[in-house]
Amino acid sequence: MKFELETAIPILERTPTVLRALLQDLPEKWIRENEGEDTWSPFDVVGHLIHGEKTDWMIRTALILEKGSNPTFEPFDRFAQFENSKGKTVESLLDEFEGLRKDNLTELKSRNLTSVDYGRTGIHPEFGEVTLAQLLSAWVVHDLGHIAQISRTMAKQYKNEVGPWTKYLTILNYTPKE
Amino acid sequence: MKFELETAIPILERTPTVLRALLQDLPEKWIRENEGEDTWSPFDVVGHLIHGEKTDWMIRTALILEKGSNPTFEPFDRFAQFENSKGKTVESLLDEFEGLRKDNLTELKSRNLTSVDYGRTGIHPEFGEVTLAQLLSAWVVHDLGHIAQISRTMAKQYKNEVGPWTKYLTILNYTPKE
Repeated sequence: MKFELETAIPILERTPTVLRALLQDLPEKWIRENEGEDTWSPFDVVGHLIHGEKTDWMIRTALILEKGSNPTFEPFDRFAQFENSKGKTVESLLDEFEGLRKDNLTELKSRNLTSVDYGRTGIHPEFGEVTLAQLLSAWVVHDLGHIAQISRTMAKQYKNEVGPWTKYLTILNYTPKE
Repeated sequence: MKFELETAIPILERTPTVLRALLQDLPEKWIRENEGEDTWSPFDVVGHLIHGEKTDWMIRTALILEKGSNPTFEPFDRFAQFENSKGKTVESLLDEFEGLRKDNLTELKSRNLTSVDYGRTGIHPEFGEVTLAQLLSAWVVHDLGHIAQISRTMAKQYKNEVGPWTKYLTILNYTPKE
């Protein structure tokens, strides 16, 4: 599938609703447990998505669209959520993410992007030159990857409970590398 | 985490809502594409979950609870959805799944299961003896695994669009084995 804003936006728009459907009013242990050392709980993942809304996707999009020639992105902090989410509830994080995402998509739509814009570029601190289409596609895949990660992390809490079914419930054998 | 009905039910109850949040009113190509040969589209997965509601989880639960000594389960048909979902829309499948799941959970709750019941057993056609707690835990993990599969399958439609981000969007590299 080629990147198109009209098919990308319906995914980006629904992620707050998907996260709410997955996590709201769940018993706390589903939300706070992770997959083992150096892995993230569903709670951590929501905080990470919030940080992306604040510092990554639309900031970089604006930079590409507003700066003349190949602006360089700030590096993204993949661990900011551990400090920023402290003392909060998952419900407050879900609300915060929903508000930020809504504002970012309002901003994205207001840009009236054309296929010429999709080809405009910026400099990623590690990858070098990337296009706006790649950035926006990565935003979509990043959402879906973290939804899969949350589901997998919750599934693994029952790793020792399913007995022989572990053979077919292969989600239990995926290693955390998202 | 140990299996307990009070923590398992909140997951089983929300799966229809999660699937609706993920799939309803999406452009058709997100829903009908799969991960390659012999893999399932999100549409196929919803059909598979419907077949599980009709022939697997609660049928086997009832068999364990009602038959005296170690009843044998019917094998589950993992491919029934290809015939059963023909000509249907994803919206009609989401409705059907929601109704079946609701009825099954009403039935499950009405059984007033005790921890003695959790240890009761049936015979799985491949695995041999399994407990009711293992069956019900597998039901939960099965839901979460298929939510992850749907997210992964959609993510992969942008595999060629994300450019160098493929390095960190590791969901794109998971092989379909659920």
